[in-house]
Amino acid sequence: MINGNAKEAKHNGTGHLAWLNTKQFRMLAVTKDYAEFFKRYSVAGSGKVLSTAENEILQAAREIFGIDATRTEEGSDLPHIGLTAVNDGSVDTLPGSFAVKVSGHSIAIIGADELGVLYGVYHLLRSIGSGKSPANAATRQSSRVELRIVQQWDNLREHIADNSGLIYHGSVFYKNQEIVSDMTQIKDYARLMASVCINAICINNVNVNIEEARFITEEKLPAMARIAETLRKYGVKLFLGVNFASPIMVGGLETADPLKEDVKKWWQDTADNIYRFIPDFGGFVVKADSEDQPGPFAYGRSHVQGANVLADALHRHGGILLWRCFVYNCHVDWRDRKTDRAKAAYDNFMPIDGQFASNVILQIKNGPIDFQIREPVSPLFSSLRKTNEMIEFQIMQEYTGQHRQICYLVPMWKEALDFDTHIKGKGSTVTRVIDGSLLDYKHSGIAGISNVYGDKYWTGQPMAQANLFGFGRLTWNPQLDSGEILDEWVRLTFGSNEKILGTIIPFLLNSRAIYEEYTAPLGVGWMCNKGMHYGPSPDAYEYDRWGTYHYADREGVGVDRTQATGTGYTAQYNKPVSDLYDNIGTCPDELLLFFHHVPYSHRLHSGKTVIQHIYDTHFEGFEKVEKFVEDWQTLKGLIDDDYFNEVNARLQLQIEDAREWRDIINTYFYRKSGVDDEKGRVIYR
Amino acid sequence: MINGNAKEAKHNGTGHLAWLNTKQFRMLAVTKDYAEFFKRYSVAGSGKVLSTAENEILQAAREIFGIDATRTEEGSDLPHIGLTAVNDGSVDTLPGSFAVKVSGHSIAIIGADELGVLYGVYHLLRSIGSGKSPANAATRQSSRVELRIVQQWDNLREHIADNSGLIYHGSVFYKNQEIVSDMTQIKDYARLMASVCINAICINNVNVNIEEARFITEEKLPAMARIAETLRKYGVKLFLGVNFASPIMVGGLETADPLKEDVKKWWQDTADNIYRFIPDFGGFVVKADSEDQPGPFAYGRSHVQGANVLADALHRHGGILLWRCFVYNCHVDWRDRKTDRAKAAYDNFMPIDGQFASNVILQIKNGPIDFQIREPVSPLFSSLRKTNEMIEFQIMQEYTGQHRQICYLVPMWKEALDFDTHIKGKGSTVTRVIDGSLLDYKHSGIAGISNVYGDKYWTGQPMAQANLFGFGRLTWNPQLDSGEILDEWVRLTFGSNEKILGTIIPFLLNSRAIYEEYTAPLGVGWMCNKGMHYGPSPDAYEYDRWGTYHYADREGVGVDRTQATGTGYTAQYNKPVSDLYDNIGTCPDELLLFFHHVPYSHRLHSGKTVIQHIYDTHFEGFEKVEKFVEDWQTLKGLIDDDYFNEVNARLQLQIEDAREWRDIINTYFYRKSGVDDEKGRVIYR
Repeated sequence: MINGNAKEAKHNGTGHLAWLNTKQFRMLAVTKDYAEFFKRYSVAGSGKVLSTAENEILQAAREIFGIDATRTEEGSDLPHIGLTAVNDGSVDTLPGSFAVKVSGHSIAIIGADELGVLYGVYHLLRSIGSGKSPANAATRQSSRVELRIVQQWDNLREHIADNSGLIYHGSVFYKNQEIVSDMTQIKDYARLMASVCINAICINNVNVNIEEARFITEEKLPAMARIAETLRKYGVKLFLGVNFASPIMVGGLETADPLKEDVKKWWQDTADNIYRFIPDFGGFVVKADSEDQPGPFAYGRSHVQGANVLADALHRHGGILLWRCFVYNCHVDWRDRKTDRAKAAYDNFMPIDGQFASNVILQIKNGPIDFQIREPVSPLFSSLRKTNEMIEFQIMQEYTGQHRQICYLVPMWKEALDFDTHIKGKGSTVTRVIDGSLLDYKHSGIAGISNVYGDKYWTGQPMAQANLFGFGRLTWNPQLDSGEILDEWVRLTFGSNEKILGTIIPFLLNSRAIYEEYTAPLGVGWMCNKGMHYGPSPDAYEYDRWGTYHYADREGVGVDRTQATGTGYTAQYNKPVSDLYDNIGTCPDELLLFFHHVPYSHRLHSGKTVIQHIYDTHFEGFEKVEKFVEDWQTLKGLIDDDYFNEVNARLQLQIEDAREWRDIINTYFYRKSGVDDEKGRVIYR
Repeated sequence: MINGNAKEAKHNGTGHLAWLNTKQFRMLAVTKDYAEFFKRYSVAGSGKVLSTAENEILQAAREIFGIDATRTEEGSDLPHIGLTAVNDGSVDTLPGSFAVKVSGHSIAIIGADELGVLYGVYHLLRSIGSGKSPANAATRQSSRVELRIVQQWDNLREHIADNSGLIYHGSVFYKNQEIVSDMTQIKDYARLMASVCINAICINNVNVNIEEARFITEEKLPAMARIAETLRKYGVKLFLGVNFASPIMVGGLETADPLKEDVKKWWQDTADNIYRFIPDFGGFVVKADSEDQPGPFAYGRSHVQGANVLADALHRHGGILLWRCFVYNCHVDWRDRKTDRAKAAYDNFMPIDGQFASNVILQIKNGPIDFQIREPVSPLFSSLRKTNEMIEFQIMQEYTGQHRQICYLVPMWKEALDFDTHIKGKGSTVTRVIDGSLLDYKHSGIAGISNVYGDKYWTGQPMAQANLFGFGRLTWNPQLDSGEILDEWVRLTFGSNEKILGTIIPFLLNSRAIYEEYTAPLGVGWMCNKGMHYGPSPDAYEYDRWGTYHYADREGVGVDRTQATGTGYTAQYNKPVSDLYDNIGTCPDELLLFFHHVPYSHRLHSGKTVIQHIYDTHFEGFEKVEKFVEDWQTLKGLIDDDYFNEVNARLQLQIEDAREWRDIINTYFYRKSGVDDEKGRVIYR
């Protein structure tokens, strides 16, 4: 696939362009098969998104082929690319659907709508950049996942509103505590999103401070409208996180009680006003009654009563309310081993299934706790039957190495999507639940907490671009394979140098498993530092109020969530899953400590004892990182120096941090269990 | 002692006046014996401090006796109070010395200087307020402790520059990130200080940010001079914390290398300028090469080379340099059980003993680590022989309950001062080291990190006023008894109601021991939350870089600092102390885990096993708090409501926090040891 010119073959990355660095596509031999087509293009239809598609063709012609493409008439006999935003029946009717048809004289990109054309163009570019021939670029695609949304963690006050001690790199939307007015970076981000079929974004953190509460006021709506306009050209809808107490915070009311008429009216007036500024406004994202955020509970109202008032306000404009199910008691007594945070979402939302307005989507984290490296799938997906639901992933690696460490998360998301809920018998995968097909939901979607901080590589760790890319690709088509997505990203980013592919792909594809190996074992989670959520501190949460415990003592470790002797959480799943987890003999090894408290001597299905498994995985996980750091050095010169160095600097941190994890977890369990490593490796006393 | 009027007898506290609430002294029967004297007063000498003394007499006459005192001639035959700032030979020559002589017709207050008179006046007021008869007020006092200094933890940026998650209450010196211009509160603070013979203050945190680095520049010196003028009237000298890198930060130089001529000149010019604004400026306090603060090590220079340049700059003006010995590696590898932070101060400063300029005082924390509830005394006091030294206490309760919990610290300080270093044989107490008498030092002193935040009770927890009071009283006279100091404070604050005395005194006197009971056991320290330094988290520091470990495993706990098998720290003490600590058979119980790693079954001198001692002290310590919270309720109505409520609110937190400590420490050690409580009390699993 590589052309002969060694100089050309060097990765020429600019972090900002990420996987859309089309100039670099020149180095691919396959480009010659596309050159003729890019000399001309035709357009059928009109509109801003279609203009974006047209511009992408022009830009690609220049950057890949050094050609100024000329516009020709539809159906020209000369080789050309045809952009058609008029569905001739060959494309699905779902928004954004497209087909790419290749004949001797044309590559026809036919969209169900303008957006379909744009997606088709990006499909074509990805095909070229990943070395596919024109024949292999032909396709017909649509997505049942209606809302493919990223949600920023930024806010005005801190840019990134986590409480991490690690330094993030700012925000695309806010600089110096102001909403940015220069749209350049937002436009570039919108382009990245559209190129992987992301069609919506919430631009502020769900923990909404007073500054962001003002986004829905007359004062700030012009700035919001400017952002929405920029996003619109790429088919990306604007959502905003709102505070449930907005009627008080910015409305001047004395209450936010959803049953008060003046509160209802305030939300309605506010929504009406938003749509005056932004006619295609997506809707609200709300974190209510969660981690000390305000919500309907403060007024003795249910989440149905709370959500429906906001939903009704949006409804006449076609807006959607994303209501998060991350509701739990964050003031738990650690002494109480029966209260189980994992049960909270189900307990809070199952009783009100079916009562939400039709434009509400319940947004449910993939697991029942909070984005640990290993959790079972939230049982809400196995239980809700009458309420639109979407799954929430965390692209940003809060608990999985943050912007330092390499952890390709698509395999984890894929597992969640493939999980069989058995809600309507075998084959009731999460994908079929959240794309709305299984339970005939009106709305469907996948949300991802964004890892875009707006630094020169967007994501801190350059390799974390793979997670943003993969999120988009997977939400468009949950059937895609993790390796296939990764292969495409690596080729687009680095070209098709076999040495680069052979070094990066195996490590990244395995990186989630490796991270799991050297951190908290067997699904037990939460052995990280408090607040910052980074680095090992096995007991940091053990006696705190967050409901996240491992109960390690001198005999054993793990949380008993069985029905007979534990918290009974397993009953929230359907059979046979509930039995699978409930039974220590059938519970999968990787989730053993999530569901059971076992002695260190307990034998896993693997044949190893729990304690030996802990030692082995920690030594081995570290060694794999060590090996990759060595391997990475061999790419020097093949990869753009800046990219190489940025990754290399973070790898030096990753290996140090992995070493800390290895030794601290091993020592922690050694001090508790007193069991020596069978292989006699160094465990500090 | 109480007069018959029950209404009058109610504590009438205003937090702001603290122990100087002279109006309240009216309720004491003893006042009648003083009434005649307060009708008249005479003054011999003149000056601003003497004027302050005179004003105190006038104010006391009004507030206690409702009298407008009139000035009379010296030696009048009519009853009067004579203020004499001319030493007639009956008073020691040390600054601030005074005598109070009582005859039938006069109370003569004779000072070695103006300050002596002022101190004598406060002595008289304290005597009245604590119910002493005129005969018992007679005294002759002086102090060998030259510098009795409080050091603020405030800075401009955060008001209180700790990294606590708990909320402090502001600052006397800074509001809204500005140096205050209204001197009222500073004057009141100066009065409190002078009333307990504190004669110096450093008004900024030793972690000096750019804002405070500017204090020694032309721009900010007028504000400093205004503060110094206010303090001066109470005989309190101004010191400033400076950043070793000031030549770069505010001087515009490219280096702070102490051997560079331009750096020396900069410090000299800066000192000259300071003294133009503040002729009696006290000097600098410096934290160098400590916890990532800049210092001479950055230039390959020693602390002697660093300190002496600053000291030389101050010397011609009579200024003093307080150079902190809190220098240690804060990037320790927890795996390394031989590196010992406790050894750092000795290792850094012993080799350069005798090389510092004559106006340098080494400021040494009482213990070798950092203000834990139980530490041995820093071995530097047992080893330095040729360098002025002072001891640093922490009045502010960073590790001892902060502004929430009641912990009267004087007994702890007293233990440190009474510790026998054996540096010149038996009887070589720390008091004799730091007052300069034992080793014939030119300068001597005691420093205390202030607990004054400037809220309505100055100290958050109103009862923490006892620590500021006690610090002053003890620094003036290290021979005073902890109980005597406390008795005086309680009487001054609450009057002499026996019910109040009998409730508060026993608890406070024991409160340090109680806090020790329910927190980290037997001198092991550091089981608190990271960063905020509050609340239990037994492993929070165990695998971190701070050099603060307890090494608890399933067999035992403690740090082996012996010479034979441990870090060898014990060798930093003189015999027989080094042997006492080195030998597990003679090491005092309360320090056992500081010096030795022992099995849980190890028997203490008390006869209990270590594990049973842990359980017993944690249950009992909690019960004592519980009992006091009950007892406190019986004071309702006897104590001013606001005072009562402020304390009560904090007691509710204290008991909750003590319960957390009890249960978390007990559970932590139960999970490790597997040993049941002999008495079958509840230990959570």
